[in-house]
Amino acid sequence: MTQTRDPQEPPRMDEHPGEGAVRGTQRMEIFADALFAIAFTLPVLELKVPEPGPHFAAHLFDLWPLYLAYLLSALVIGLYWVHHHFSGAIYRTTGHHFLLATVLFLTAIGFIGFPTRAFAERIADPEAREPAAIFYVCALAATALAWLIKWKTGCATGDVDDRLDPAYVRRLNRKYEAATALSVFAAGLAFLRWEAGLAVALAVILFYLRAPETPVYVGRAPKAEGES
Amino acid sequence: MTQTRDPQEPPRMDEHPGEGAVRGTQRMEIFADALFAIAFTLPVLELKVPEPGPHFAAHLFDLWPLYLAYLLSALVIGLYWVHHHFSGAIYRTTGHHFLLATVLFLTAIGFIGFPTRAFAERIADPEAREPAAIFYVCALAATALAWLIKWKTGCATGDVDDRLDPAYVRRLNRKYEAATALSVFAAGLAFLRWEAGLAVALAVILFYLRAPETPVYVGRAPKAEGES
Amino acid sequence: MTQTRDPQEPPRMDEHPGEGAVRGTQRMEIFADALFAIAFTLPVLELKVPEPGPHFAAHLFDLWPLYLAYLLSALVIGLYWVHHHFSGAIYRTTGHHFLLATVLFLTAIGFIGFPTRAFAERIADPEAREPAAIFYVCALAATALAWLIKWKTGCATGDVDDRLDPAYVRRLNRKYEAATALSVFAAGLAFLRWEAGLAVALAVILFYLRAPETPVYVGRAPKAEGES
Amino acid sequence: MTQTRDPQEPPRMDEHPGEGAVRGTQRMEIFADALFAIAFTLPVLELKVPEPGPHFAAHLFDLWPLYLAYLLSALVIGLYWVHHHFSGAIYRTTGHHFLLATVLFLTAIGFIGFPTRAFAERIADPEAREPAAIFYVCALAATALAWLIKWKTGCATGDVDDRLDPAYVRRLNRKYEAATALSVFAAGLAFLRWEAGLAVALAVILFYLRAPETPVYVGRAPKAEGES
Repeated sequence: MTQTRDPQEPPRMDEHPGEGAVRGTQRMEIFADALFAIAFTLPVLELKVPEPGPHFAAHLFDLWPLYLAYLLSALVIGLYWVHHHFSGAIYRTTGHHFLLATVLFLTAIGFIGFPTRAFAERIADPEAREPAAIFYVCALAATALAWLIKWKTGCATGDVDDRLDPAYVRRLNRKYEAATALSVFAAGLAFLRWEAGLAVALAVILFYLRAPETPVYVGRAPKAEGES
Repeated sequence: MTQTRDPQEPPRMDEHPGEGAVRGTQRMEIFADALFAIAFTLPVLELKVPEPGPHFAAHLFDLWPLYLAYLLSALVIGLYWVHHHFSGAIYRTTGHHFLLATVLFLTAIGFIGFPTRAFAERIADPEAREPAAIFYVCALAATALAWLIKWKTGCATGDVDDRLDPAYVRRLNRKYEAATALSVFAAGLAFLRWEAGLAVALAVILFYLRAPETPVYVGRAPKAEGES
Repeated sequence: MTQTRDPQEPPRMDEHPGEGAVRGTQRMEIFADALFAIAFTLPVLELKVPEPGPHFAAHLFDLWPLYLAYLLSALVIGLYWVHHHFSGAIYRTTGHHFLLATVLFLTAIGFIGFPTRAFAERIADPEAREPAAIFYVCALAATALAWLIKWKTGCATGDVDDRLDPAYVRRLNRKYEAATALSVFAAGLAFLRWEAGLAVALAVILFYLRAPETPVYVGRAPKAEGES
Repeated sequence: MTQTRDPQEPPRMDEHPGEGAVRGTQRMEIFADALFAIAFTLPVLELKVPEPGPHFAAHLFDLWPLYLAYLLSALVIGLYWVHHHFSGAIYRTTGHHFLLATVLFLTAIGFIGFPTRAFAERIADPEAREPAAIFYVCALAATALAWLIKWKTGCATGDVDDRLDPAYVRRLNRKYEAATALSVFAAGLAFLRWEAGLAVALAVILFYLRAPETPVYVGRAPKAEGES
């Protein structure tokens, strides 16, 4: 897992011994994108067209908790996708352990729609609301944790782009640690007061609406890929 | 969000400060394509094989509103995909805010199958038809609006290809504005007369069967990508 | 839709006026692949785990028509994918009308799983078997027809690779025409004798297990893409 | 299926006669990734939000066999994906017969979620547990066998990267043969003692948590793809 190449030279397939064949990030991103897209769309599958009759419009309206579930799930999965898109510029290679950590992260992304639906579909029920919210906030914390594990694994295996300024990488590290710590704290808090735990967890999510810091390179920034 | 590069040079990762890492359009297109493909296929999931018996053929035939739902949804999502494919030649980079706007647009695409089914599956019911049609026309208007927001965001952040002729970009802008205005007008009209609103909304869709204008560049047109 | 470029030069974005922006085939292939993958996997969704109890093994076995539906659907969709992979080497560019024809073809691919299931799940029912088989053979014919329309459109718009030997393109054309004619004939035959129609339709499918002819170029064959 | 090219030169489209057009591995990987992603996510679809009421938390907890099904399925499909990612560096081209073998392998991947669910959802039922476990272990063996068929086909058609050290390719061959033999043995054993068969089958899976051997090339290793 050491790395002695000149960063200006492109990486080679046999470069990180103990990590299988080293490849670029594109295939990892394609698998992730397909999985993000499916997880994003699944809550729509729960929507059933109401029976015909005079109250059809009202029945369409009564589905609002399912619309909310879709929107909430789209917000969370969409924001994770936007930042995963960004981190695809942060990593330069993908080896075996980084892929395993990616699968762990994607396991959380594939699952998150269910706790989201559990919370949104029972938001109006005074008895089910509290356990559903706790379940949701815990699932958000598990997803944040899986993201952090992925990041730490990529750092440890040398898959992070070695052309980035080390100070920039440290700032990114602190940001991910802080967001995960807050998400785990929110999960603990939710057991005491679910409204407070939920508020903290959603605040962390909304924080990700802000653009991440533009990467800083030691030398000249690499070309944006995909240029013909 | 300013841009001072020579357009003949390829863009670089750190080029649009405040937009995270700037990348090409490919990954955005892959996520979009996966989501388009899922949204396209989901209405088929509603089709259940009829029970065996002497009326099997008739029961297969009775599913026609679900076939119609699939075809109508394939038409709308397919046309949006064809034009999204085209707009992938219009944009050159993808930054944070453009990705957020893309997620908003894809939220609409992921959802549009449900109002389509609500309308097509209740088209023969005199009571449900009107609210279902209004719901459908409103969803089409929301999708057109999300497309326009994506376009306007891409223009504002400098993600539109800077090698395009400005007059060409202005014509594109007017076209998207006109189509969105008509779609929103159709939604309003549908509350008064649903048949009229639906007709206007479908006319806008059918208009997109026509090829968009071939792009005009200030210098020589860039190579079609993907050439070996 | 004319084409005056030297075939050794790569195509350019503005090259086929009236076709929008001309791009390579990659994005069309990504959308197609995602849709193929979803259509391929959907029949598995119909499989429900049997209730517990002493006859669990027998109930697992009783699901055989659904296993058959999956295998039959995987055979047909898989073979179309293998040949679509090949035709991705035959086309060089994608313009507006070719994309429209691709959407039409993918509409058929997304749907084909349903008639497949209707036939396989009712194969043991003496009353439902015949209409289900006719429905299936007609759907196969519609898919073959959509493939031919896609091919003819690509020929007409100049999206077929202009470096291919014209005699080779003519042989491909005859092959697709023959396969489609046979599939449509099978659909007509199925109304008279469903077993005969089904046999012809499946023979056409099985014919596609054979490798297509290796492309013949006027000059030197292009590089296989994806080489680093 | 012979191969006389200098391995330092990139492969060309017409290079393996009898295999259709030879292309790189990228499109095969995109179709595989989409299918892996769908198969990965489908078990989440089985999760239904419990009815509201005082026992909501307990009902959420009672779904644990379905959570287990998702995790077990994610482990198996995720590990196959990680190794399929790696084998994407082992193959250099894709021809007709290798694609057919890939479709066979993906048929197994698309199906594996169902036996996984059958086993995990009935793990607490004393009557259904044994047949469900046998079904699961047999499905794992069929998947391993399909992987081996894919590998052997790729070797026979010359799609394996000809720049790899032959001794390295032989070691890979022995590893895949051993893993498949063990998986098939586990399936046989499961009919005698399901616990023993399951233990062997899962041991083979867990073995794949280890990184595969880094590829060894005759000359200099190729560049990791995806570098701008």
